[in-house]
Amino acid sequence: MPKKFVVTPWEVSGEIDYEKLIREFGVKPLDDKILTRLEKNAGELHYFLKRRIFFAHTYFDTILDQFEKGNKFYLYTGRAPSGPVHLGHLVPWMFCKWLQDKFDVNLLFQIPDEEKFLFNESLTFDDTKKWAMENILDIIAVGFNPKKTKIFLDTEYAKTMYKHACRISKKITFSTAKSTFGFNDSNNLGEIFYTCMQSVPAFLPTILEGKPTYCLIPCAIDQQPHFFLTNDVAPKLGYPKAATILSRFLPGLQGMHQEGKMSSSVEATTIYATESPQQVRSKIMKYAFSGGRETIEKHRKLGGNPDVDISYQYLTYLLEDSNRLKQVYNDYKSGKLLTGELKEFAAEVINKFLKEHQMKREKAIGMVEKFMLRD
Amino acid sequence: MPKKFVVTPWEVSGEIDYEKLIREFGVKPLDDKILTRLEKNAGELHYFLKRRIFFAHTYFDTILDQFEKGNKFYLYTGRAPSGPVHLGHLVPWMFCKWLQDKFDVNLLFQIPDEEKFLFNESLTFDDTKKWAMENILDIIAVGFNPKKTKIFLDTEYAKTMYKHACRISKKITFSTAKSTFGFNDSNNLGEIFYTCMQSVPAFLPTILEGKPTYCLIPCAIDQQPHFFLTNDVAPKLGYPKAATILSRFLPGLQGMHQEGKMSSSVEATTIYATESPQQVRSKIMKYAFSGGRETIEKHRKLGGNPDVDISYQYLTYLLEDSNRLKQVYNDYKSGKLLTGELKEFAAEVINKFLKEHQMKREKAIGMVEKFMLRD
Repeated sequence: MPKKFVVTPWEVSGEIDYEKLIREFGVKPLDDKILTRLEKNAGELHYFLKRRIFFAHTYFDTILDQFEKGNKFYLYTGRAPSGPVHLGHLVPWMFCKWLQDKFDVNLLFQIPDEEKFLFNESLTFDDTKKWAMENILDIIAVGFNPKKTKIFLDTEYAKTMYKHACRISKKITFSTAKSTFGFNDSNNLGEIFYTCMQSVPAFLPTILEGKPTYCLIPCAIDQQPHFFLTNDVAPKLGYPKAATILSRFLPGLQGMHQEGKMSSSVEATTIYATESPQQVRSKIMKYAFSGGRETIEKHRKLGGNPDVDISYQYLTYLLEDSNRLKQVYNDYKSGKLLTGELKEFAAEVINKFLKEHQMKREKAIGMVEKFMLRD
Repeated sequence: MPKKFVVTPWEVSGEIDYEKLIREFGVKPLDDKILTRLEKNAGELHYFLKRRIFFAHTYFDTILDQFEKGNKFYLYTGRAPSGPVHLGHLVPWMFCKWLQDKFDVNLLFQIPDEEKFLFNESLTFDDTKKWAMENILDIIAVGFNPKKTKIFLDTEYAKTMYKHACRISKKITFSTAKSTFGFNDSNNLGEIFYTCMQSVPAFLPTILEGKPTYCLIPCAIDQQPHFFLTNDVAPKLGYPKAATILSRFLPGLQGMHQEGKMSSSVEATTIYATESPQQVRSKIMKYAFSGGRETIEKHRKLGGNPDVDISYQYLTYLLEDSNRLKQVYNDYKSGKLLTGELKEFAAEVINKFLKEHQMKREKAIGMVEKFMLRD
């Protein structure tokens, strides 16, 4: 029996059927045809694309049409600051950086501090500010071009944003927001308005430059409902529609069947960007859901299941070498590679990745002001 | 049979029964007891109070309690910029100036440009900006103390306001807003959020100064529903409740039974602040609803009805000399004063008032920047 799953901007739970999600959301798969076009323009394909970690899109073909005609696009993504950054957050940002490098384009990076404040009963603006400043270090550590990247907190850029959020809000009825997000009478007024603020960066360069400027939004697929509203409004205000390129969720340690995605708020499911090699190794050993057999004997004989194994899944996100990845897959499936060995290898790959991230994060401390956009 | 009337922040219509409105809104009448206290503290009573043009309040006793203990309050009022200022707008502002002078207090003057933009299908932000700049001249012309008065447009002060509007919004559910304002599924998202922005100035000095700072809001009674929500929220955020002191509406030219108040959008009912003496005289002569009899003979014999006569009503707002006003009342009632004579006198009083206003408005052009508050 298919299990129930939920994907909204504020809840991701259950075992997600991404094929079904493509149909339900009415987005398009990133098929071979569009990937070939992307490869032609970018010069190569990121392994996130080859492995279908980015797997769906809306209007990405329009972005390529425009690019092929010589019209540059810009990137827009975001991070709602409610806690520490974990591996799952870094995935779309790494892809953003790749797009920025390959296409030499600008990036608007939104920190919707009010979103987390409004949707989380216990968070204060002091909390969101603290997390914003922490998270910005992780964002900068990804390696964005400081000349082409602007990071802003909604509350610090509200003089520019609020007016345009109002222009957007005038085109969205409560009825539409209700059916898009499942709002009801008990939602607070800020929650109801917030989506308008999330639409603003999808139009802002068009507004500020006074000419159609195409926007590509790399993000996890849970954010797509906001951008449906964005694109409902776009033609009403005479702006180009915003394109999205959508990723799966990095699963939590306890497995894809247990929770929809890695979550900042559940420590035992999560590898944070600032954790030590010892912590990471220990969490992988202790918590990472295994596709292995109950005994070494059975595993050697029958083989493991990499498709549900979390250590293997993390390698698909972080091990760039596809031949090596394939070898791990085959060896685990055949029983040659034991669960303990796979976990050690995954911990090693993650720690190598995090070591570099943490070095860059340290350097980011002195670079924050270069990136910040404020009114 | 009592006629139906409607009083909301966005609609005032019908023949308003102010006694009934006091009961329905649950506000308090400005009774002799509180007026005596006000007189003691102010040194005198404005004729708007004696004539019950300001007729009701909420928490005004708290303002006096605090003032008597040596704690100053501040004033907060506003003007939504959708068209030219008319006589009806000037009434609460004149009273504001009187309070500022008598109590030597600060005034925050909000121009909620986004409110008019959001609630009026055809208005653009270019329109609201144009009207805001025009209206600010009329505001300054009232004679506020430039050292103690700050005027701001919401969209230009949003960096400061939006964050606090979010804090307020977190305490108001859609259900509450619906029952307060009659919202439904077809309202746009900005309309739903707007009331939070109207609450911000009622708390801002408390927030910025970090200590309880009492707010008194002189306004027409249609704005009271917003401030009910403000005061629902105040204790939840640890702020003092905002007090209101509430005026009746200046009736339109065509009479108190015809329309709830003078309206910028209906030219034939309205005397604008920038009209020429000829225009004013002509409108009064042509449109001002008369309490006179059909013929001079009947009028001389039976007398007129000043209580429904619009020219007389306008004198109650603009003729400070109470003896003279009483004489006009008696003479019209007895039939000694004819409708034409009353109209001439009213036009003369209005024109004298507007001549002075227009002179000060001209001078205000060079003073705008002294008053403006922006992020």
